[in-house]
Amino acid sequence: MMLDARQTNDLHHPALDEIDLPSLLHALSDPMRLEIVRSLFCSAQGELACKEIVLPVSKATASHHFKVLREAGVIEQHDEGTRRISNLRSDDLERRFPGLLDSVLRAAQADETARA
Amino acid sequence: MMLDARQTNDLHHPALDEIDLPSLLHALSDPMRLEIVRSLFCSAQGELACKEIVLPVSKATASHHFKVLREAGVIEQHDEGTRRISNLRSDDLERRFPGLLDSVLRAAQADETARA
Repeated sequence: MMLDARQTNDLHHPALDEIDLPSLLHALSDPMRLEIVRSLFCSAQGELACKEIVLPVSKATASHHFKVLREAGVIEQHDEGTRRISNLRSDDLERRFPGLLDSVLRAAQADETARA
Repeated sequence: MMLDARQTNDLHHPALDEIDLPSLLHALSDPMRLEIVRSLFCSAQGELACKEIVLPVSKATASHHFKVLREAGVIEQHDEGTRRISNLRSDDLERRFPGLLDSVLRAAQADETARA
């Protein structure tokens, strides 16, 4: 019997047609969550362990932010051993709301550049 | 002495460079506020009196939604006599975050079509 190394059963992920625009925009409306999304977008492999994304908040707060992003359909998460891996659901979001994630990422980049 | 018919002095509007991405996304993350934005976008003259946008909420709640949109830089408001007129700050938003409002409006349209 093959065991899938990815354990996702305990984590809720909305199906494509359950991804809701207000919830998606709410998930993206926080600086820490935008930073998570930018980090995942910029990562070479398109995925990161939670602990690889360093945020200036407590571990509990960071976990909350990851959960909000997952439940809004922005990221997919699975466990590999003791590591929880996250990746952007870029293809799903592009199919559901074409151009939206791209324009938010561009806006976040512009915002970051303006502040630097 | 000329008097400007538009009274905006008592209403706060952020300057272009004060429009903040998380606040903008938060303002757009509510179904009623998305409906206001769509109504303004679809109106022939690009502006509407608050009472021309019929929402299934109390007047106080509607006023709150307009205020959130105004303070996030999404809409401009001014009073003409007893009417408070709102219009989308499309040009400002396009300059600040190119493509973002368009992609949100397209997403809202897709969401509406899917539900219909």
